[in-house]
Amino acid sequence: MDRSDKQRIEGIVQRILDDFGDDRAINKTDLCNEPDKTAIIDVIDKLMKILYPGYYSDKLYKIYSLKNNMSVIIEDVIFHLKKQIMIVLRYCKKFPELTDAELEDKAMDITYEFMDKIPQIRDYLETDIQAAFDGDPAAGSKDEVILSYPGLYAISVYRMAHELCLLDVPMIPRIMTEHAHSVTGIDIHPGATIGKYFFIDHGTGIVIGETTIIGEHVKIYQGVTLGGLSTQGGQKLKGAKRHPTIGDNVTIYSGASILGGETIIEDNVVVGGNTFITNSVEKDTRVTAKKQELQYKNN
Amino acid sequence: MDRSDKQRIEGIVQRILDDFGDDRAINKTDLCNEPDKTAIIDVIDKLMKILYPGYYSDKLYKIYSLKNNMSVIIEDVIFHLKKQIMIVLRYCKKFPELTDAELEDKAMDITYEFMDKIPQIRDYLETDIQAAFDGDPAAGSKDEVILSYPGLYAISVYRMAHELCLLDVPMIPRIMTEHAHSVTGIDIHPGATIGKYFFIDHGTGIVIGETTIIGEHVKIYQGVTLGGLSTQGGQKLKGAKRHPTIGDNVTIYSGASILGGETIIEDNVVVGGNTFITNSVEKDTRVTAKKQELQYKNN
Amino acid sequence: MDRSDKQRIEGIVQRILDDFGDDRAINKTDLCNEPDKTAIIDVIDKLMKILYPGYYSDKLYKIYSLKNNMSVIIEDVIFHLKKQIMIVLRYCKKFPELTDAELEDKAMDITYEFMDKIPQIRDYLETDIQAAFDGDPAAGSKDEVILSYPGLYAISVYRMAHELCLLDVPMIPRIMTEHAHSVTGIDIHPGATIGKYFFIDHGTGIVIGETTIIGEHVKIYQGVTLGGLSTQGGQKLKGAKRHPTIGDNVTIYSGASILGGETIIEDNVVVGGNTFITNSVEKDTRVTAKKQELQYKNN
Repeated sequence: MDRSDKQRIEGIVQRILDDFGDDRAINKTDLCNEPDKTAIIDVIDKLMKILYPGYYSDKLYKIYSLKNNMSVIIEDVIFHLKKQIMIVLRYCKKFPELTDAELEDKAMDITYEFMDKIPQIRDYLETDIQAAFDGDPAAGSKDEVILSYPGLYAISVYRMAHELCLLDVPMIPRIMTEHAHSVTGIDIHPGATIGKYFFIDHGTGIVIGETTIIGEHVKIYQGVTLGGLSTQGGQKLKGAKRHPTIGDNVTIYSGASILGGETIIEDNVVVGGNTFITNSVEKDTRVTAKKQELQYKNN
Repeated sequence: MDRSDKQRIEGIVQRILDDFGDDRAINKTDLCNEPDKTAIIDVIDKLMKILYPGYYSDKLYKIYSLKNNMSVIIEDVIFHLKKQIMIVLRYCKKFPELTDAELEDKAMDITYEFMDKIPQIRDYLETDIQAAFDGDPAAGSKDEVILSYPGLYAISVYRMAHELCLLDVPMIPRIMTEHAHSVTGIDIHPGATIGKYFFIDHGTGIVIGETTIIGEHVKIYQGVTLGGLSTQGGQKLKGAKRHPTIGDNVTIYSGASILGGETIIEDNVVVGGNTFITNSVEKDTRVTAKKQELQYKNN
Repeated sequence: MDRSDKQRIEGIVQRILDDFGDDRAINKTDLCNEPDKTAIIDVIDKLMKILYPGYYSDKLYKIYSLKNNMSVIIEDVIFHLKKQIMIVLRYCKKFPELTDAELEDKAMDITYEFMDKIPQIRDYLETDIQAAFDGDPAAGSKDEVILSYPGLYAISVYRMAHELCLLDVPMIPRIMTEHAHSVTGIDIHPGATIGKYFFIDHGTGIVIGETTIIGEHVKIYQGVTLGGLSTQGGQKLKGAKRHPTIGDNVTIYSGASILGGETIIEDNVVVGGNTFITNSVEKDTRVTAKKQELQYKNN
């Protein structure tokens, strides 16, 4: 590298560093106090090994050492998750009155409470696996569902993130479900409430909004939106019920949009593909779009 | 970590381990005998290097050593693929009468048969590259297609997985295409049959079901579903022709849904965007949705 | 491995190597002269650390060493980006009259020009962050937007790739945006022109074509296509304006398709969900699909 290159690079570095100076959102450089996305994704990967001990394993150990290995993984998750929770609690000023030591205790308690929810999360996931196998003629076995269905992955991450939401942890739940969104194309907000036996088939393009409530035995296909009617209100709408309520035994075929916080889809409803629904639907109903008029021309 | 922390962690570990006790699907812990998703994804990555020697290479070797390098990669693929095939054959009890040694021979034979299909797979992919370049005005060159088009990646993985399907290998083909689905948003079931010169543009949200049959020179855009009419039958529908048949020279624009096992789209048909098609379409036809009535309001 | 295995593997290797012989596109083996996708993705990751110094950091260093660390990352990006630009310039024969040394100088100049655009790119991204926070009631904070919104990631990569497009760099911009497409399901062609305060919510399935022009304060939801009317012309359409023009303060709800190079959506327009638009829309208009007729049957 000759001298002029050195000067040009120095100039570039200086101009970029200068650009970090003011207090725009993009400029945060308080590095040690930010949640760490990579650490959170690593926690997700390890939690998957706890949820599905035989599937997401490292295959390096034998069955007799399962207990030792699980202990190591669980301790590791507790350590890292607690650290990230501590960071976001401080960062979001959830408990401004607490000292750092007290905040760490708080983070520890939340982490323990979360870890104690794992058997219950696994109870729910067992029903989701059953629903996928029962609902999809292409499913060769439940193992195939666990090993290859993106819907089950998205639901697994959602069910964990949702528990952290209920424990009032900021930021981390959304980072978790957005990681699953990236892997699967399925975007479930961690704030949504979803019952047992939930089956997502194919799944790409699904959006389930923050205040959605979904009952049991619900089946959803690719491209379905359970969303808000309008977001013109922006931040003023925060906290309002903006997304629909879905009853039990509801099937929603691909491309359907169900919008609005007052829209209720009652039990045993079948929602046809590509429908656009902004009003409630009574129970035991099959709602479909009027047969689309097609035009045929000789090419 | 103080004593009460130690006790709480031990309690959590014990409760999670207790939860692994019963015989639910989620509890499989027979670690050594499960197919290994990570190993299968590694095989996919290496197979891509064999399919596209100049593109997915490690860039570490010179052209004169291509032969040696390819030999190493091919042997590696054979070793790991055989191992995974052996595991799934035993796991799915495909040949309960065979000893482990005989099962290993069987897995070896299947692996050899698959590897001998590679030149034919590459023949097909060369036509897919041609179709992408010819069909997309935004394609700068065939190299750009190979290096950056997600559709070609999804088709490449599908074409390999489909050959494993034809060789009656369980689970692995689906794990392969679901990996491609995660990378691209394009969900092609490995059981589908797809002819030469197949072009997927953009691709996110595409679903191509298990019993779909697609001819040659077919072009499909993002959000297209080639799917089933209903899955209310669940596992009872296994094996039935549930997905459509598409002829030669057919173009299907974005967001179209073509559903049902008896639906046949004949040669030279153009299917317009956002159509919902559950009946067959005769050859040389352009079928479009009737012009959507739009409403304009002053804001 | 016994002798017959050895022979079979040798046969397979030979048949695959023989298959590399002819001059099909798939057979390129000029390894050293191909752009390297892995290197380009690594450059993207490092550029994200420069764009968002506090978020995509390695968390290993303290604030006082920010300058040193940034210098290292910036030099690293310059070195690798220059190398890849040099490769694609030679590969695509952009300057056949230049010697390799002159081509390297050319690549260096382009790299410097690109790096000097970073403060301007960050100016734009700051407005995009603001737009996401203001536009989404579910956004907890701007940090959450930066750490978890896929739309912002896709826009960040697009804004960098677009600058490389303007500097006439072939192949690399598309490889960059296709990487973002894989991560987010959002497909923005690097040739598109997009103004400040751009907000993508959810995003999966969005396609924004090469010749699209988008104004300021535009908001786009999942599944929106800004595309061409037909690609029957294939390569003959290269360079033509095939994709729409969108004014300022436009909101486009999920699933809308706006198609055609002469289609202009003027300022302050709201485009309703699932609309299919192939004609221009005048300013201050809300355009929606006529209420879809739904059919209700007792199940």
